[in-house]
Amino acid sequence: MRIIVDAMGSDTCPGPDVAGAILAAREWGDPITLVGDKAKIEAELAQHQTAGLSIDVAHASQVIDMTDKATDAAKHKTDSSMHVGLSMVSKGEGDAFVSAGNTGAILAIATLKSLGRIKGVHRPALTALFQNAVGYTIAADIGANTECKPDFLAQFGVMSSLYAEVALKIEKPRVALLSNGEEEEKGTSLVKESNELMSTLKNINFIGNVEPKEVLAGETDIVISDGYSGNIMIRSFEAAAATMRNLLRSEIKAQPLTMLGGLLSGPAFNRVRKRMDPFEVGGAVLLGVAGVVIIGHGRSNEIAIKNAILRAREAVQGKLIEAIQEGVNA
Amino acid sequence: MRIIVDAMGSDTCPGPDVAGAILAAREWGDPITLVGDKAKIEAELAQHQTAGLSIDVAHASQVIDMTDKATDAAKHKTDSSMHVGLSMVSKGEGDAFVSAGNTGAILAIATLKSLGRIKGVHRPALTALFQNAVGYTIAADIGANTECKPDFLAQFGVMSSLYAEVALKIEKPRVALLSNGEEEEKGTSLVKESNELMSTLKNINFIGNVEPKEVLAGETDIVISDGYSGNIMIRSFEAAAATMRNLLRSEIKAQPLTMLGGLLSGPAFNRVRKRMDPFEVGGAVLLGVAGVVIIGHGRSNEIAIKNAILRAREAVQGKLIEAIQEGVNA
Repeated sequence: MRIIVDAMGSDTCPGPDVAGAILAAREWGDPITLVGDKAKIEAELAQHQTAGLSIDVAHASQVIDMTDKATDAAKHKTDSSMHVGLSMVSKGEGDAFVSAGNTGAILAIATLKSLGRIKGVHRPALTALFQNAVGYTIAADIGANTECKPDFLAQFGVMSSLYAEVALKIEKPRVALLSNGEEEEKGTSLVKESNELMSTLKNINFIGNVEPKEVLAGETDIVISDGYSGNIMIRSFEAAAATMRNLLRSEIKAQPLTMLGGLLSGPAFNRVRKRMDPFEVGGAVLLGVAGVVIIGHGRSNEIAIKNAILRAREAVQGKLIEAIQEGVNA
Repeated sequence: MRIIVDAMGSDTCPGPDVAGAILAAREWGDPITLVGDKAKIEAELAQHQTAGLSIDVAHASQVIDMTDKATDAAKHKTDSSMHVGLSMVSKGEGDAFVSAGNTGAILAIATLKSLGRIKGVHRPALTALFQNAVGYTIAADIGANTECKPDFLAQFGVMSSLYAEVALKIEKPRVALLSNGEEEEKGTSLVKESNELMSTLKNINFIGNVEPKEVLAGETDIVISDGYSGNIMIRSFEAAAATMRNLLRSEIKAQPLTMLGGLLSGPAFNRVRKRMDPFEVGGAVLLGVAGVVIIGHGRSNEIAIKNAILRAREAVQGKLIEAIQEGVNA
């Protein structure tokens, strides 16, 4: 398999993107194509030991950054690393595309300009993959579709379930719907109707509604929602974790004794920080487009890029696209 | 002013409820009426020094607990402490009602059975009051109305702004709308239409959309949303903070050195835990009903109950109901 890696994706590109690709090539040996500014990529490659690794470079003259408006960039920056890389996957010159760049732009280019949707898919879904108290959770949608219909959500459930099975090797993954906690008002009409619909599906292990605390406790493998509330959940998890870290840091620094305590307990803090950061898993799959696309966080370091490439390998090896094609048309 | 306190509200009632009322009576001197099982309340009172305090008891034969279905309890348990207490406020026998009980039941009884809505109010809103990195945030709605129209959200903004001004003494409070972070998809159509409407309002200081991280950073005083996504945000904040605490605790215990570090830095942890817990502020106001109602968390201890009573005092002193009556009909 050949993985196409966007060298111009991360906030500090191409350093982490290139270094991550090298780590992946060294560990797994699959050929990798780095897409982006050829001169910059080669300068970066020259700083590493790459002898014996199967890494080549595809030039793209334009770069889409986090400030670009997604649809404008999709329309006008047609020689961007994202356009070039996604089109390589679309033409069969690569098996997966990995980028830590502008999520909205990747979504727009993949959906509208290159790969398109898998036949039978209503809407592609952005996912997040993060560690809960006992394992991994997949959340879908987290922002591609702010307004949804029950059959969109049901299909997000089917696609996520297939991803969990074939790529993450989770058996009979539990699929739940995100809902709120008020007894009388369990969910919007969208949640209620989706719950009814998903209860009838034979090809997913639907377990009903969950609240955010049940998501983090690991009571489901998959949490399905519209892109708006899924985004609010994920961003709230991140914001609370970051706020707590910052508060702890400043409270610990406030007194000499707590500062000493903080130094001693540092390793424990670091382990927790890793677990709570939704992006330490590398990247999350874009479900429903006709090709494997993994999107990492802009802040990705080389380890995150390497792990994003691992996510791509798992999806290719599990024949994700074929599985979804079959699953949504069953 | 007389505050009516639900003695049967908290999960471990009537202990914390009665003890909190005593603390409040001692500190501020206002008369307090405890509502609930008279024998139990008097037994609890007998364990404290109450000489010179103006505390009396109103009997209610029924108790609504967290497992009760809100509308059923509102309809059938008509001699509950909530019915009796709220009806005292409705009849002018008290100035505010404070309860750490079943939120849905309080909402249903207040709205449908006793106080009713303030004239001109479309829908009452449940609020949360919590500490951000620099001060307090009010969130509304967090669960009373899962589906909303733009004019509901605009009115939540007006009511929350008035509460912040008259009760919490925040000058020109900043009002923002909760939204997601994708550039192309800033919010649902509800968010977009509400943004347009709220931009035209002269009586609030509307600052536009915010994401969860901006909420916790304290970039707004008030965050407005439909009850579904507001609930997801609040529950996600709570869940992430609780998960991080639990993970830290177990990681710190995993090694002797980090355990020593954890002991030394304990005071810093405790300060952070207090700041991150949305319920340490005591309680949050129910906006839009024709009486001051403060709802505390079921886990409330006596300090939380005392602080919930403080929230009630602030609202009564600030003439909140009159302010809202005037504000929504301006």
